[in-house]
Amino acid sequence: MFVILVYDVGEKRVGKVLKICRKYLTWVQNSVLEGEITEAAYKRLKIELKRVIEENEDSVIFYILRTTKYSERETMGVKKGGEEIFL
Amino acid sequence: MFVILVYDVGEKRVGKVLKICRKYLTWVQNSVLEGEITEAAYKRLKIELKRVIEENEDSVIFYILRTTKYSERETMGVKKGGEEIFL
Repeated sequence: MFVILVYDVGEKRVGKVLKICRKYLTWVQNSVLEGEITEAAYKRLKIELKRVIEENEDSVIFYILRTTKYSERETMGVKKGGEEIFL
Repeated sequence: MFVILVYDVGEKRVGKVLKICRKYLTWVQNSVLEGEITEAAYKRLKIELKRVIEENEDSVIFYILRTTKYSERETMGVKKGGEEIFL
């Protein structure tokens, strides 16, 4: 499955959150990562994040795409990161 | 179609970009909006954004989902915005 992860976390935790996310997904833009990931790896990612974020302050959103067949990505302006393989 | 928009733009342009995006999509998190949008409205959104952003400095990514049938959204921590109708 393909996951788009966006996070909005406290300044003190950004470094830790980004470090964890980068183990599983590709950084594409400030607070945005994406990539193919297995169910098992996705579970591990969530467990690791849960240990770091402040549940009542931070926000992490996962968009889970079972298939990328019906989706595409368009970029305006500079391409900051990411891989071309998405779509 | 359903669009997830993420932006990473210069401080001076954030207000303008957010104002434009909010005309078309729902704010869900810092620099992230989402929502159902027609092709015509999507074109207008891009034209308006092109007038405001600095092409060689700012980055806007659109994830376009033709259908949300194969996708879902999961939130960890606080829910900052958005509507429940997504998936």
